[in-house]
Amino acid sequence: MKAIEKLLLAVENGKHICVGLDSDSDRLPKHLLTNDNPVFEFNKKIIEATRDYAAAYKINFAFYEALGIKGLEALIKTLKLIPSETLVIADAKRGDIGNTSKKYAQSIFGHLKFDSVTLHPYMGFDSIEPFKAYKAKLTFILGLTSNPSAKDFELQKLQNGNFLFQEVIKKVNDWNEFKNLGIVFGATKFKSLRENFGLIKNLPVLLPGVGAQGGGLKEVADLFLKNKKSDFLVNVSRSLIFADNSPNFQQRVREKIIELNEQVCS
Amino acid sequence: MKAIEKLLLAVENGKHICVGLDSDSDRLPKHLLTNDNPVFEFNKKIIEATRDYAAAYKINFAFYEALGIKGLEALIKTLKLIPSETLVIADAKRGDIGNTSKKYAQSIFGHLKFDSVTLHPYMGFDSIEPFKAYKAKLTFILGLTSNPSAKDFELQKLQNGNFLFQEVIKKVNDWNEFKNLGIVFGATKFKSLRENFGLIKNLPVLLPGVGAQGGGLKEVADLFLKNKKSDFLVNVSRSLIFADNSPNFQQRVREKIIELNEQVCS
Repeated sequence: MKAIEKLLLAVENGKHICVGLDSDSDRLPKHLLTNDNPVFEFNKKIIEATRDYAAAYKINFAFYEALGIKGLEALIKTLKLIPSETLVIADAKRGDIGNTSKKYAQSIFGHLKFDSVTLHPYMGFDSIEPFKAYKAKLTFILGLTSNPSAKDFELQKLQNGNFLFQEVIKKVNDWNEFKNLGIVFGATKFKSLRENFGLIKNLPVLLPGVGAQGGGLKEVADLFLKNKKSDFLVNVSRSLIFADNSPNFQQRVREKIIELNEQVCS
Repeated sequence: MKAIEKLLLAVENGKHICVGLDSDSDRLPKHLLTNDNPVFEFNKKIIEATRDYAAAYKINFAFYEALGIKGLEALIKTLKLIPSETLVIADAKRGDIGNTSKKYAQSIFGHLKFDSVTLHPYMGFDSIEPFKAYKAKLTFILGLTSNPSAKDFELQKLQNGNFLFQEVIKKVNDWNEFKNLGIVFGATKFKSLRENFGLIKNLPVLLPGVGAQGGGLKEVADLFLKNKKSDFLVNVSRSLIFADNSPNFQQRVREKIIELNEQVCS
């Protein structure tokens, strides 16, 4: 199944929540810490609780890399638990050129078999091309991110009148003849999202920043649905997966993702 | 020993060549392929051949990540072979925000104990700060990169008159109160390097792009030395480590790095 088909299947079923597996080993429920690989055990329980409701899963590489080989093992084992019809995004934010970029693409799409990835645009098309070459995958490129210092560069105005992030979105549109590119747009930047909605055109959008970072789910979802654009995913990480630290945390996580789906579709 | 002290010790001894361990498993000398971990065996031999002449080693993460756990094992074992007084750079080109960025910094500086790292500037200061907080380390931020599509964004002119890469270099200067930031500048962009030399000020510079990518070592080195700026590293990867594929490749690699050092200092 192509990555975009997985995304569209989810949204047809009213699912827009991407579960961010930012499985910080310092924040796991205490009763899991006696396991051989607590991060994997935690992910297993989160996936059990959310698999019927999640539009996608996003693996945030930092939390796995920080644990070395044990972390990579947790990542690989976690991937095997995700239903084959559900989109899995490597939130790796890679960005390099030439044969290095090819190797990153091979690692994420070939070796680990992710459906999707996040990339930095800074180095330009050379850094996107080896990922784009995987036509059945879906490559999300950073547009406007959710953090305050997006102003340092992303919100710099260019002499051609575009903000840098707008230039990125326009170029990603130009590069999208295989219909396998999308963009990342921070849900905390709602005003910019609304103002730039027309620019996004046919690009699928991954929206982080809801929950712990303060973005509003309802207003974001309404904007998309009102404009009849359904190919969006709202990522929720900490505020969902760490909603409860008790031994019974799966129940609260399941209730929470059901609530989130209802907020989107109500 | 602080990272910057390692760099300055090397350059005082006339060493400016950073050995790029882009140890592509598809390009290793055939006689090494029967080893349990051919990439590690290759690195071991490259380090033996170059350790007396290398100013630094740069580990290009893509080539290790593409091999999964075996690759991470090769990376970890390789780090142990590098002399403790020699700078080791994680060419990981990471870039994220908040607790994710903290975890990446913890992974590279804490867990793996690299001296130095490369980062993307796109997301702004938020993505740099957790690395900068490691005061004894050295964080290189992408300025102008060696690839043709640097023109897509890095060479966009801003309304304030700067090219994007110039804005990045200026801001990196502003953020450098701990003297632990540097920049990456592609050696293939010699004209731009000469024109922007004054902008770089006190930032150490990592220069990739010499050799396989076509940058000229002599002209780059002359520019720095003429301007009495010694804190620069010229990275050479493929054209050095794959200079010879015979069982006797160490000899050619050693000759080659000696030649490269001589070109810099002649």
